[in-house]
Amino acid sequence: MSLSLDAAAQDLLFREARTANTFTDEPVTEEQIQAVYELIKYGPTASNQSPLRITLVRSPEARERLVRHLAEVNRAKTATAPLVAILAADNEFHEELPRLYPTFPQAKDVLYGERPVRERSALLNAALQAAYFVTDLRAAGLAAGPMSGFDHAGVQKEFLDDDHSPLMVVNIGRPGADAWRPRLPRLSYDEVVTSV
Amino acid sequence: MSLSLDAAAQDLLFREARTANTFTDEPVTEEQIQAVYELIKYGPTASNQSPLRITLVRSPEARERLVRHLAEVNRAKTATAPLVAILAADNEFHEELPRLYPTFPQAKDVLYGERPVRERSALLNAALQAAYFVTDLRAAGLAAGPMSGFDHAGVQKEFLDDDHSPLMVVNIGRPGADAWRPRLPRLSYDEVVTSV
Repeated sequence: MSLSLDAAAQDLLFREARTANTFTDEPVTEEQIQAVYELIKYGPTASNQSPLRITLVRSPEARERLVRHLAEVNRAKTATAPLVAILAADNEFHEELPRLYPTFPQAKDVLYGERPVRERSALLNAALQAAYFVTDLRAAGLAAGPMSGFDHAGVQKEFLDDDHSPLMVVNIGRPGADAWRPRLPRLSYDEVVTSV
Repeated sequence: MSLSLDAAAQDLLFREARTANTFTDEPVTEEQIQAVYELIKYGPTASNQSPLRITLVRSPEARERLVRHLAEVNRAKTATAPLVAILAADNEFHEELPRLYPTFPQAKDVLYGERPVRERSALLNAALQAAYFVTDLRAAGLAAGPMSGFDHAGVQKEFLDDDHSPLMVVNIGRPGADAWRPRLPRLSYDEVVTSV
């Protein structure tokens, strides 16, 4: 009752949304991912840096190369998901800042001149965008299965380059039979929120 | 048309949502933040680690201490926002894993035994939860103004401890007069998404 968002949308995006472990055969189209991108691109990032980069693994050959780098427990679901995406952070995002953040043209060098600062900021802000991506896949009626159980150096070498760090692999599709595991416990409000 | 979420909800959460720079006097209640937490707690994190910790800055004295650590450009809006939250990552989140992730009791030591691994994972996953928090503040009809322009070491020393790293400060409230700046440019789909 303290929320403006209607209950159906709350369920779709948050309350009923779950990490799917099986999928139907229904393909995920380019148009769906474009519609999702049109929403996530507006989500806020520091200095509008927008460091998320998305690799859609569409060919069977690329899928096979990816599955080899996954933890054993994650291989079957990624092998059968209609679409798989590798989400990465662009550690050289500052090159785009003169265009993305014209209100402070010096940001590229003053705020992000040093690589370790950029890497931390890219990780944090690409993770924000990864969360927008997972939420907006749900807005498209799709189930998302984000995973961090993979050989990160292996995936980086196989699909990315030294300037792009993998964040997660996401299985995408309509949920299939027995898609859901029992919900895990969550921390209580008082364990997470304090007031000063 | 490729989305299941209705257009009003799309606008509320993503399309029309903006970072507010001014706020009305209307208070943000404990009940509103509790309702937001009831949604964000379900958002997925790796191994259900849930590392986000939230400090609500409610007292005028604490507000003053916080404002001192902010970049000049951020001081006025944080001084006048109805509520301000410091979001942080708990780098010792693994202590809660036996309870949060009972399906893999060894995760605490096998996956997260080393502090540098934990710090990166806490940063990434707390950032995911920070994005759920910003999105769900919007679901509550509130405007959120996330900021990373502050002295992170100073805020950590003043409000947190060595095990909690600040991610961002968020101004929260109903948007006031002239709350919005012109929207900044975004990257195009083809600059962000590639297929293999």
